Amino acid sequence: MTVGYELISKDGAARRGRLTTAHGTIETPAFMPVGTAATVKCMLPDSVKATGAEILLGNTYHLMLRPGAERVEKLGGLHRFMNWSGPILTDSGGFQVMSLSKLRKISEQGVTFQSHVDGKSHELTPESSMKIQHQLDSNITMCFDECTPFPVEKKDAAESMRLSMRWAQRSRDAFVDRDGYGLFGIVQGSVFEDLRHESIEALTKIGFDGYAVGGLAVGEGQEAMFSTLDFTTPSMPEDKPRYLMGVGKPDDLVGAVERGIDMFDCVLPTRCGRTGQAFTRRGTVNIRNARHAEDPRPLDPGCACPCCRDYSRAYLHHLFKTGEVLGLMLLTWHNLAYFQEVMAGLRSAIEGGRLKEHAAAFRTEQALGDIEPL
Amino acid sequence: MTVGYELISKDGAARRGRLTTAHGTIETPAFMPVGTAATVKCMLPDSVKATGAEILLGNTYHLMLRPGAERVEKLGGLHRFMNWSGPILTDSGGFQVMSLSKLRKISEQGVTFQSHVDGKSHELTPESSMKIQHQLDSNITMCFDECTPFPVEKKDAAESMRLSMRWAQRSRDAFVDRDGYGLFGIVQGSVFEDLRHESIEALTKIGFDGYAVGGLAVGEGQEAMFSTLDFTTPSMPEDKPRYLMGVGKPDDLVGAVERGIDMFDCVLPTRCGRTGQAFTRRGTVNIRNARHAEDPRPLDPGCACPCCRDYSRAYLHHLFKTGEVLGLMLLTWHNLAYFQEVMAGLRSAIEGGRLKEHAAAFRTEQALGDIEPL
Repeated sequence: MTVGYELISKDGAARRGRLTTAHGTIETPAFMPVGTAATVKCMLPDSVKATGAEILLGNTYHLMLRPGAERVEKLGGLHRFMNWSGPILTDSGGFQVMSLSKLRKISEQGVTFQSHVDGKSHELTPESSMKIQHQLDSNITMCFDECTPFPVEKKDAAESMRLSMRWAQRSRDAFVDRDGYGLFGIVQGSVFEDLRHESIEALTKIGFDGYAVGGLAVGEGQEAMFSTLDFTTPSMPEDKPRYLMGVGKPDDLVGAVERGIDMFDCVLPTRCGRTGQAFTRRGTVNIRNARHAEDPRPLDPGCACPCCRDYSRAYLHHLFKTGEVLGLMLLTWHNLAYFQEVMAGLRSAIEGGRLKEHAAAFRTEQALGDIEPL
Repeated sequence: MTVGYELISKDGAARRGRLTTAHGTIETPAFMPVGTAATVKCMLPDSVKATGAEILLGNTYHLMLRPGAERVEKLGGLHRFMNWSGPILTDSGGFQVMSLSKLRKISEQGVTFQSHVDGKSHELTPESSMKIQHQLDSNITMCFDECTPFPVEKKDAAESMRLSMRWAQRSRDAFVDRDGYGLFGIVQGSVFEDLRHESIEALTKIGFDGYAVGGLAVGEGQEAMFSTLDFTTPSMPEDKPRYLMGVGKPDDLVGAVERGIDMFDCVLPTRCGRTGQAFTRRGTVNIRNARHAEDPRPLDPGCACPCCRDYSRAYLHHLFKTGEVLGLMLLTWHNLAYFQEVMAGLRSAIEGGRLKEHAAAFRTEQALGDIEPL
């Protein structure tokens, strides 16, 4: 395992770092756009790159079902298949098995489930998940884990976490070491401090290239998420990257970076972009709202992305009202660009030792709400 | 009316020319991508431009319903609204009223109809169509005409054509002359030679910046379309551009250019792109077909567009099977790029006096059919 991590500077608990992989480097804190089925929905890879993204996330569950990991391997791996030359992280499939598949059966061995696409039966184990992620040629492979539901009894959370820790050891054993490719462990334990610490201890004993915080952003709310991070990240290794899975909204990213997180992924910028919801410096904007119908101003006057540079709110509103694909393309682009801008601002603030002021200014501007109608 | 037309060279009946408008020049023969509702579906305007397109077509009917011509005018006109700085031609709305709206009533005055969007009642007359196209800031305005159905009795075709000729005079009277903006008349008369000649005579007496051939590509078939052109274009003014409306497939374009047509518009490259049908040098390809599932080759090995440069057939197949928007984006791009390449090839062949050989080679390659499976 040799995905490199360099800790460049710190500001409070927040960290400015750099990851090195076989397909390039990633400045952290970093946000990873989600490319579920080998495409960041509604975006050309060049456009994703233009937003500033340096690494994408691919979904093992979706790709094993369609087009199949063997087929992707035959076609030269995921980078070549989807025309993304930069680093790729793949999840292990565990989360999607829980959220999307049917007739799941969990055993010590792994999970059997029915595909949500065609009902066919499949199995995922730590070993098969490692094999699939290898076939995809993922730069950062995630351990196969059980996604603990929320809310959960402590006893069940402990059992689930300990199963994931045994699977983490099997994942490590099955992972094939290669230069520039790494394996991340996933800290579980829900919102329970001692379980999180037990999980960290188990994982660090095995040893990984990075450590993810799993089992959050599953309905516990921002307060519980932050308080869980407050007692989790201080016990995580300082010399390895920390990845908060499936998070989040812009203010989630800021708060988690303040608590020492280095990496994020989330479907929000892309998914919301397709429903007409934009993230801006002044909070969220629903472009379908009639107030935008004749508004000649850009979606986010402070943004330099093509959507804000070249188009009016009136035009974007028109595209969504008429169901035009270009609307999805432009709003997705803006949201991804804004998320990258949030991360760039955080990186710069940490470097300058002014994260506290930066985060306060960010929250003040967000709280203003959208610009007044003309 | 001052849209300029320069006839640069001829090769048989085919013409190599140049149109000049307030928003730029257009090398002819030219194909105009259709931007129905102020967007070429699934394409950014910069990408449309990158295919080589120099002029777009906008739809008066769609735009008058949504977002409304007054709103587009308030927002700076169609160019600014949709971020297309080049020339724009708008149809008159006549064709869509016939094909899309409900409860149509045609009178000498014009057409009343119910919107296909919300059922509201609207009226289109030569005068209101001119006003709307003016509000849109269209560089080339089309006369308001009745779209004659097919098949049709000669008596009905004559009546319909003569109504369109009276509307052409009213369109000319209502059109506001401006530098770099022009008005085109539309030749009607279905497949009847004497009616087509009568229509040309009526239109040239009024005098227009260009002349379109309307009422074709409505189910008559390529043979009838070509034979109609054979007796129509020779009687059309030599010193004005000729526009065949709503045409067509690549071999329609080649055959019509051989018969003296200068301009085309058609939804086929964009619409087929969204259904998985690609136009290639070797005929059409349905990318959804299972034979492409593991094919690492580009869609069209002879094509330099981003779709063919960066992606395999296997990837495109995957995108269509999983319903990913990127599939629509890439296939639309390829189809538009191929149509522009067909036109560029025709322009070059006419300039070199080798259109006959060029067209023969084009047909030979098309007849080969798709490349063999691996």
